[in-house]
Amino acid sequence: MRISLFPATRFLKALHSHQFPYTAAASPRLFSSAAAAITVMKLLYPNSLKLDISRIEGFPTSLVEYDVKQLIPDEHLDAEALITWTNTAENLKDAAERMKNLRWIQSLAAGPNDVLSAGFDTSKIKVTTGSGLHDHTVAEHALGLLLNSARRFYEMRDYQLQGKWPGHLGGPQPDRPAGSFRTLRDARVLVWGFGNIAKTLVPSLLGLGAKVKGVARHPGVRMGIEIYGEDKLAELLPETDALVMILPGDPSTRHALNAKRIALLPSHAWVVNVGRGTSIDEDALADALEQGKLGGAALDVFEVEPLPESSRLWKTPNLIVSPHAAGGRPQDAEPLIVDNLRRLLAGQELKNLI
Amino acid sequence: MRISLFPATRFLKALHSHQFPYTAAASPRLFSSAAAAITVMKLLYPNSLKLDISRIEGFPTSLVEYDVKQLIPDEHLDAEALITWTNTAENLKDAAERMKNLRWIQSLAAGPNDVLSAGFDTSKIKVTTGSGLHDHTVAEHALGLLLNSARRFYEMRDYQLQGKWPGHLGGPQPDRPAGSFRTLRDARVLVWGFGNIAKTLVPSLLGLGAKVKGVARHPGVRMGIEIYGEDKLAELLPETDALVMILPGDPSTRHALNAKRIALLPSHAWVVNVGRGTSIDEDALADALEQGKLGGAALDVFEVEPLPESSRLWKTPNLIVSPHAAGGRPQDAEPLIVDNLRRLLAGQELKNLI
Ligand SMILES: NC(=O)c1ccc[n+]([C@@H]2O[C@H](COP(=O)([O-])OP(=O)(O)OC[C@H]3O[C@@H](n4cnc5c(N)ncnc54)[C@H](OP(=O)(O)O)[C@@H]3O)[C@@H](O)[C@H]2O)c1
Ligand SMILES: NC(=O)c1ccc[n+]([C@@H]2O[C@H](COP(=O)([O-])OP(=O)(O)OC[C@H]3O[C@@H](n4cnc5c(N)ncnc54)[C@H](OP(=O)(O)O)[C@@H]3O)[C@@H](O)[C@H]2O)c1
Repeated sequence: MRISLFPATRFLKALHSHQFPYTAAASPRLFSSAAAAITVMKLLYPNSLKLDISRIEGFPTSLVEYDVKQLIPDEHLDAEALITWTNTAENLKDAAERMKNLRWIQSLAAGPNDVLSAGFDTSKIKVTTGSGLHDHTVAEHALGLLLNSARRFYEMRDYQLQGKWPGHLGGPQPDRPAGSFRTLRDARVLVWGFGNIAKTLVPSLLGLGAKVKGVARHPGVRMGIEIYGEDKLAELLPETDALVMILPGDPSTRHALNAKRIALLPSHAWVVNVGRGTSIDEDALADALEQGKLGGAALDVFEVEPLPESSRLWKTPNLIVSPHAAGGRPQDAEPLIVDNLRRLLAGQELKNLI
Repeated sequence: MRISLFPATRFLKALHSHQFPYTAAASPRLFSSAAAAITVMKLLYPNSLKLDISRIEGFPTSLVEYDVKQLIPDEHLDAEALITWTNTAENLKDAAERMKNLRWIQSLAAGPNDVLSAGFDTSKIKVTTGSGLHDHTVAEHALGLLLNSARRFYEMRDYQLQGKWPGHLGGPQPDRPAGSFRTLRDARVLVWGFGNIAKTLVPSLLGLGAKVKGVARHPGVRMGIEIYGEDKLAELLPETDALVMILPGDPSTRHALNAKRIALLPSHAWVVNVGRGTSIDEDALADALEQGKLGGAALDVFEVEPLPESSRLWKTPNLIVSPHAAGGRPQDAEPLIVDNLRRLLAGQELKNLI
């Protein structure tokens, strides 16, 4: 356990001007040197990734590491703040039942479906996501999948495994023929779900010469890119060479890409999904690919993960299976934790609040 | 055949101030309307790609399309300029023997090894390369191979073909652990051969967070990147996570990456080659990969192409075979042709001269 000691004078100043919601009387932990006794809030941080704890010190908090694969020990059930990363379902379910003082959960996942389905009382507990911590790694993976698709690396691999030179994929070839997706240069890329990850991806796409448009809940112009509402999909999909989906996995996005919308895409178009598997009707996608009505699909996420052995997607033509490998590595989590901890203590609205 | 008619007054002005090497007397083709009779130079352009010929009109040239898979017809053997792209070896050999007036060959290949080995008298004929026409497409392919390597798409494919979920490549994982190449973010990328292609690739690498250094014949700083001479390789290679080779295929680069230099790379490092196959000692590379002394290699070019059935490279672990697919699509060739045609007519030094 680390106790974060806050210089008493600065802290008292903060106390008066910012009205911390914590008062002296209730707590057993006191600053012996402070003129006023201050409650120290207990924050539990996970053992499942490397965090530089020195970067979140300086608040009236006690910082306690916990094991995400075990139940929270009894002596720490009094914690008011919980940071989660790859916790077991048992750990979260137990915490939801027994942590009566919990006021804030900071998930380090961009889409904390695990926390949301564990039974926490979200009328009392604020849940914030790790959106922003996976931008670089997911954007890079999405770019890799786009290039894998355009450059047909998966098909080259199939040939290599048979000891055959895929001559049709190399040597002299037509430059950007109409009705094809063979390069990002001049390709019409539609990014559906234009949040933090999309904003990190877009500069790479533009740098390679792609023509980018976006779809989100709120239309407008972001980063110089025209963003449309979903009501414009019927016009946008037929003009798309590559559709990149980066939607969250909530009920509003379920089967967002369905048979009807797939049919609106040109038959050479590719679909890349690094958001959540539930946003695509997988059977409709597989049908279109098997019937040659779509160029291909590169999926990092699936309706059921790991993809079941019985899934038809393993063998669907021009379908690339990536094992939810885009993210999985929160980066620079400390500033987000600090920001939200400060906001909580100051009684301000949290960032990435669900 | 298209005859490019040059407005007579502007042409005469050019003639006087720039001293065209062409004079009136010798030629059978005259501008009937011109005050002075002007030789029209015959330029043969290939039928093997789409060129917008209107974009190279305006000079005193007759522009004639020819078939790169046939011998040059007798009536066009008098041409003084020849543009080549995917010509057959027979076509080039025959042209080298029979085109007595030839003064300039513009290859659209970045590395015109075919022209250079056809027997043209290069003491009389200027050969210029298509360096610059393949920058986007080769840089994009190199980036794709780097991401294929870092994100292990080839390994995911091997699992997919067996209907297996490669769990070790997805889900939660350590962020940028030392001694690994799993992302371009913070990766130390060394680009060996820092010409036109490299300059197009580098912004993408920097955008993804890589730390880039270069090696070329001439050291110095280019685009803010420190470029070293080959004498510094012994210090650079041990500090490299990904080595990108974009060297031409001339005798000076033969087996530039040999056993000794491979041994200087960290055991997790990857090698990507989109230059020429001759610049790597393939057997030394395969040895290192089989012995686990190198992370992997993604090769678009080989000492012998197509890669022979008997090659050990098909089955070398962590080796990706790409079938010389990076380039093959000259882009925006017209401005280069115009620039060199103008320079030739003006008696100036040509661009991309070998
Ligand atoms: N594959 C992986 O390993 C991995 C890793 C990290 C994250 N993810 C997934 O990626 C998702 C996106 O992450 P992010 O950080 O970019 O999220 P974000 O910043 O919250 O952005 C979400 C975007 O989706 C849009 N959106 C939400 N619901 C929509 C709907 N019903 N229709 C249309 N657009 C809708 C939002 O529109 P507005 O902008 O208009 O609000 C916003 O543009 C996460 O939720 C997570 O599921 C996957
Ligand atoms: N895979 C494909 O499909 C494909 C397509 C197009 C091109 N290529 C290959 O890529 C090569 C490079 O193309 P580019 O347009 O970038 O060429 P470029 O602009 O001529 O650049 C060549 C670079 O290599 C360096 N170099 C040459 N000889 C060297 C040596 N002995 N040691 C160290 N550095 C040396 C040069 O150094 P300085 O800058 O100091 O002179 C220069 O930086 C072409 O020659 C071609 O073989 C492959």
